[in-house]
Amino acid sequence: MASYCHRRYVSRLFQNFGKLQPKSKAGRDQDVGLSCNSHKLMMYNDVVAQSYAGGFHILPLGLRALEKLIRLVDEEMQGIGGQKIAMTTLAPESLWQTSGRWAAAGNELFKLTDRHKHQFCLGPTHEELVTRLLANIAQISYRHLPIKLYQITRKFRDEMSPKYGLLRGREFEMKDLYTFDSSQETALETYVEVCEAYNRLFDRIGVPYVKVAGATGIIGGNLSHEYHYLAEVGQDSVLLCDRCGVQMNKELAAEDGRLPSACQMPASQCELQERKGIEVGHTFYLGTKYSNPFKAVFMDSDGSTMIDFQMGCFGLGITRILQASVEALSTETGLRWPGLIAPHQIYIIPKKDGSHSDDYLALAETLSDTLTRKHHLRGEVVIDDRMNLTIGRRQVDADRLGYPYMIILGVKALESPAQYEVVDTASKETTFMSLDQLMSFTDKLETI
Amino acid sequence: MASYCHRRYVSRLFQNFGKLQPKSKAGRDQDVGLSCNSHKLMMYNDVVAQSYAGGFHILPLGLRALEKLIRLVDEEMQGIGGQKIAMTTLAPESLWQTSGRWAAAGNELFKLTDRHKHQFCLGPTHEELVTRLLANIAQISYRHLPIKLYQITRKFRDEMSPKYGLLRGREFEMKDLYTFDSSQETALETYVEVCEAYNRLFDRIGVPYVKVAGATGIIGGNLSHEYHYLAEVGQDSVLLCDRCGVQMNKELAAEDGRLPSACQMPASQCELQERKGIEVGHTFYLGTKYSNPFKAVFMDSDGSTMIDFQMGCFGLGITRILQASVEALSTETGLRWPGLIAPHQIYIIPKKDGSHSDDYLALAETLSDTLTRKHHLRGEVVIDDRMNLTIGRRQVDADRLGYPYMIILGVKALESPAQYEVVDTASKETTFMSLDQLMSFTDKLETI
Repeated sequence: MASYCHRRYVSRLFQNFGKLQPKSKAGRDQDVGLSCNSHKLMMYNDVVAQSYAGGFHILPLGLRALEKLIRLVDEEMQGIGGQKIAMTTLAPESLWQTSGRWAAAGNELFKLTDRHKHQFCLGPTHEELVTRLLANIAQISYRHLPIKLYQITRKFRDEMSPKYGLLRGREFEMKDLYTFDSSQETALETYVEVCEAYNRLFDRIGVPYVKVAGATGIIGGNLSHEYHYLAEVGQDSVLLCDRCGVQMNKELAAEDGRLPSACQMPASQCELQERKGIEVGHTFYLGTKYSNPFKAVFMDSDGSTMIDFQMGCFGLGITRILQASVEALSTETGLRWPGLIAPHQIYIIPKKDGSHSDDYLALAETLSDTLTRKHHLRGEVVIDDRMNLTIGRRQVDADRLGYPYMIILGVKALESPAQYEVVDTASKETTFMSLDQLMSFTDKLETI
Repeated sequence: MASYCHRRYVSRLFQNFGKLQPKSKAGRDQDVGLSCNSHKLMMYNDVVAQSYAGGFHILPLGLRALEKLIRLVDEEMQGIGGQKIAMTTLAPESLWQTSGRWAAAGNELFKLTDRHKHQFCLGPTHEELVTRLLANIAQISYRHLPIKLYQITRKFRDEMSPKYGLLRGREFEMKDLYTFDSSQETALETYVEVCEAYNRLFDRIGVPYVKVAGATGIIGGNLSHEYHYLAEVGQDSVLLCDRCGVQMNKELAAEDGRLPSACQMPASQCELQERKGIEVGHTFYLGTKYSNPFKAVFMDSDGSTMIDFQMGCFGLGITRILQASVEALSTETGLRWPGLIAPHQIYIIPKKDGSHSDDYLALAETLSDTLTRKHHLRGEVVIDDRMNLTIGRRQVDADRLGYPYMIILGVKALESPAQYEVVDTASKETTFMSLDQLMSFTDKLETI
């Protein structure tokens, strides 16, 4: 059994990259340009750093959140039988010619030529590669279906005008799931099953979302939905009517000739709203658009007929979800994370230097050890050991970084019986707890 | 607390991508070309699949092993205070010009031009990016040092002649750690600390390795070591003498003018051997080679002097370790994994169809549920539910895929008291265990 849990799960802030002082705020503002709140907060607080226009490094705090989000997605994808793989980043031109996307994708595709003069693109999605992968396996039986393969890997798109940090970057982490079914009927069952998994995922993240009918665009296919976080900085326009229940991307309404009003109610009762959305997920029923040209087939129950797969593809913008949820939840001065994926859950602030300073710090260390001995709190505790600063000053930083809970070790923490001050960062609510209460409270914290 | 563990932790083989029938062996042989044992075994058993010459998809079994290896590396890197980040794949040409590596790397660098005519390379290593990242943070104090930043991301190298699958591919997963110290002395302490973490890591993987003095090559710097797995398919030649203790890359011995014999003993007592090694790790002390041109500095204890960082960089070939360890351990017909990173630990084979067939399968399911309820065995159990096959036939597959332990549910498993037959796949040793013994045995299985 893994038994590798020691003091290192207590992060000391002085060793924490996220605490290094950024360049002057003015200098940072210049880098960020005219951007959105989440992007600024993530830059100022060393959650991300710009590498080039549209390309961002994910720094330690950001990566902890990202890895939690990935575990969450893994749980939901594997919960519906998804099998995780990792396909190559480079995709040969020939495959993209076969699908017709080499030309269709235009300048958004990063292309390169290798030393042998072969052309490749950096995959923005992997329909071609995964379909060819299945086509190369002989004799897949109808009994093996559905097959659901997904990956969480870095994708590339040469955006004309990258902006808003991870919301619209040129390289980004994406989850792409590809499903292979034997009939249109079962493919649609699979489609619904994946949508349900997406609903569970977004429910667990906890940021309000809408699911709207979407246009299929360059991916193709004949049925598509999009998941959006509603936010002013969103690139898409979605049409929502509480009365008739219409939820669709405005683009689709235009394609369908359903504008000016997509609402199905008489004009007098129409409550159609147009809102801006950040697209965080997209589902497509593809039919045989890819399986047919790639000759990806299975053997039917008669034991001789080879039939094209009915395919679906299902994307989640992982780095986009990360920033979009921060955009939805943060205040102007403080990062806020979905609770489950916050980089760390607990921030301990021992009282400032004074006659008992060592006692407070020692208590913080003991408490941290006790907490991180619980399996679900490993790595979740940070001690702010800048003992020369007041509690209040350190609370400002904890608030700025958005740790969900602060435990303040003030004078009452050294009294008998000890009282620990627990602050809910989002609501600012303060509760004094006994050690037992604190243990029971932290037992219930959900982590991933 | 995370409580997301249900039946899905039991993988049913009919849904397992790794069990789909490959194309004819002859067809596969053609794809693989003249390659090594591990590459063939990994292709035939759907651990990896070729995407293009030198590029490989990692399939579900392979990815489970890879993710375990990554967790192991995370533990050891974080154990020495390493902070995990993820830098961009694309690196702007200008930075590589600053370091002088744009020209020096030659054709091994994949280069591309974006829609705005800016040039980038796909990073094979990230000295430039990480040094610039640190240079952009003003006022790093000597008190913040050492800083240790690492990432585990996909890297790219346009190998002239890619071969042996993941051993020498054109895209691969690499762990790269960069350290920033205040002086040569502390940088060397950090260097030793990282080497010790590497030793622990390789000890835990369990495949015999050698650490040799290495040449610095294009990375530069003035001190370097390499970690090798000794194997005939290795690309490097290492010189080892049990008597004088010399362990060095032959290339370095040549540079140093220490050939024909690097051994320090008189010729008559020299026991120098030349062996082939697969380089799985590399450590470099860089000094100020990168910090100087990128002006990456810290503020010294006097509060005014800005001094160049003393840097180190430390690589591990993650996908290469995966395949090289399989190469070292496998038989000609069966995959063997380092125990800790085997895709699954336990393979349950319930007795074939017959009068009691449902009872055996039900017992397998109950046993699997019991085992996977233990935290460390989540996802570690596979039931071979191909109830139309004999136990022997299914044992052949378990052996071929290299699951460390088989639990065979034969007639004795339904007797009272029940006896479970446990087979150690590597040694073929068979032990009959009571349920209590089985529980205590599986409690002790180390997983990650």
